[in-house]
Amino acid sequence: MGGTNIRTAAVSRTGEVMLMLRGPAKAKGTAAETVENISRQVLALEDAASKSGLRRAIAIGVAVPGPLNVRTGVIYAAPHVKSWRGFPLRRNLERRLGQTVIVENDANAWALGEYWRGAARGRKDVVLLTLGTGVGGGLIVGGNLVHGKSGMAAELGHITVDSNGMRCDCGAYGCLETYASASGLSNLIQKRLRLKESKLPPQYLHDGEFSARKLMIQARAGDRVAVEILATAGHFLGVAVASFINIFNPEMVVIGGGVAGALPLMRPAMLREIRARAFSAAVAQTKIVKAALGPLGGVVGAAFAALNSIAAKSV
Amino acid sequence: MGGTNIRTAAVSRTGEVMLMLRGPAKAKGTAAETVENISRQVLALEDAASKSGLRRAIAIGVAVPGPLNVRTGVIYAAPHVKSWRGFPLRRNLERRLGQTVIVENDANAWALGEYWRGAARGRKDVVLLTLGTGVGGGLIVGGNLVHGKSGMAAELGHITVDSNGMRCDCGAYGCLETYASASGLSNLIQKRLRLKESKLPPQYLHDGEFSARKLMIQARAGDRVAVEILATAGHFLGVAVASFINIFNPEMVVIGGGVAGALPLMRPAMLREIRARAFSAAVAQTKIVKAALGPLGGVVGAAFAALNSIAAKSV
Repeated sequence: MGGTNIRTAAVSRTGEVMLMLRGPAKAKGTAAETVENISRQVLALEDAASKSGLRRAIAIGVAVPGPLNVRTGVIYAAPHVKSWRGFPLRRNLERRLGQTVIVENDANAWALGEYWRGAARGRKDVVLLTLGTGVGGGLIVGGNLVHGKSGMAAELGHITVDSNGMRCDCGAYGCLETYASASGLSNLIQKRLRLKESKLPPQYLHDGEFSARKLMIQARAGDRVAVEILATAGHFLGVAVASFINIFNPEMVVIGGGVAGALPLMRPAMLREIRARAFSAAVAQTKIVKAALGPLGGVVGAAFAALNSIAAKSV
Repeated sequence: MGGTNIRTAAVSRTGEVMLMLRGPAKAKGTAAETVENISRQVLALEDAASKSGLRRAIAIGVAVPGPLNVRTGVIYAAPHVKSWRGFPLRRNLERRLGQTVIVENDANAWALGEYWRGAARGRKDVVLLTLGTGVGGGLIVGGNLVHGKSGMAAELGHITVDSNGMRCDCGAYGCLETYASASGLSNLIQKRLRLKESKLPPQYLHDGEFSARKLMIQARAGDRVAVEILATAGHFLGVAVASFINIFNPEMVVIGGGVAGALPLMRPAMLREIRARAFSAAVAQTKIVKAALGPLGGVVGAAFAALNSIAAKSV
């Protein structure tokens, strides 16, 4: 579930997407309405799946934005679904669907998806960064997803990369998200051009909204502002990745999300900071790659989490 | 093994120190000489242990400074033992002692020690910071020590807290170590007083060397430089701990090392940054405490690592 769309999929035991449904998230409704909306899509998918000869779902996994308690299934805060703050999503979905439901943070689920079926197959130590509207993260350590005490771990967009930097939506200053997300890039352009909020020139917009893709096209066309903004974002992305390499000695750093489309233009500045800041022996062991799964990463990963919970129960 | 001393101990299966020996590290000798020096202490300890009725060691663990490959036992770089760079320490110790040896990074070993017998008993997600000459780290995630791909993980002193900050011994700029270590504090005072290297006033020195303890005494006596320096160190320690809380959602952050003695004076600035930067739900779940084991933490943890390796083999 994202801020705009819900993607619902039937995923096989081996991680193949057999059936997919996409509908509006209706994220502005009450918590009860969004539960009903999700449930209807799951039921519609189960109906379609049964008609096409697939078996009934053995487990349901839901990937949602924002930090949550993975054990209780209570959402702490969901940036795009305000009504979910403190909402026991898991319990409500289970009651409505009459089946066990696993709730997982969307970036965590994406990390699981990349680990199961994507760029990080067979890698035991993986750092995933999702550069979208905000910056999310997922961590695989020793082959296991890192949850921390209650499932709030891997908020990798909110490590400080510049302690005197811009104010982040989370309330802190100089988080990675203030540079390497779509909203961060947009703010950087506004600051660079000394504009008031939402007054970006049309060459950076798509349908009136800021677009990292348009920014990249502008940069490729030689627009100096675009080139410099992407270098700045790449610089701070590199500062963060260097810290992650020193913290995790990972086999792989996987970068996904809309802003990752501009990675070729951020890469030189990113690599410069990584080489300057991280231990060279660890850098040499780290592959830095683009995510392989795209928007279905979270869906596939949520299915994996649900499958694992069934496996854990039957042991 | 530290830069100055080697501590060798006989540790029981339940983590009690039965016998302890302290000798000079002779860290300036060749790699072969330091291997001989360590081995002699181990043999002397085994001799004393047998005379006092203890059984022969069933496993030997060695904690050493600097990043190393935990599987091969090869040291990547040891700040205090220059001759160890690229040295296969484990193989050489095993050959000399005729027994299986486990080599572990000292801060990792300390984290294991705190987890086994110290402040973090029963905690499954723990971040350990050792504030000594430099800043080391150890990570327990889901009850397991984090090694990364080759044992170089948890170099927590080398995350960037100020990307335009002072140059660190590691070559990067603005690492946590440039603020929250003894050498960092010393540099901060020199910078604040605009002194050339090693010209610190006597009130911050002990036996001619910079002493975090003397700095704290000065701060308690009202010395403004001392108060401000400890607040600066606390500020950046807080920036780092906030990032660790957002990354790990830990149950506990354990802070040890000589500089941790000044924690009461760094704490207000540290807590201010943590509250301003980390997710409040995660902050509420995190206990921040002083290490319980002191200089024996690494010894006890190395014993635990050795014991675990025996247990893993017999499975």
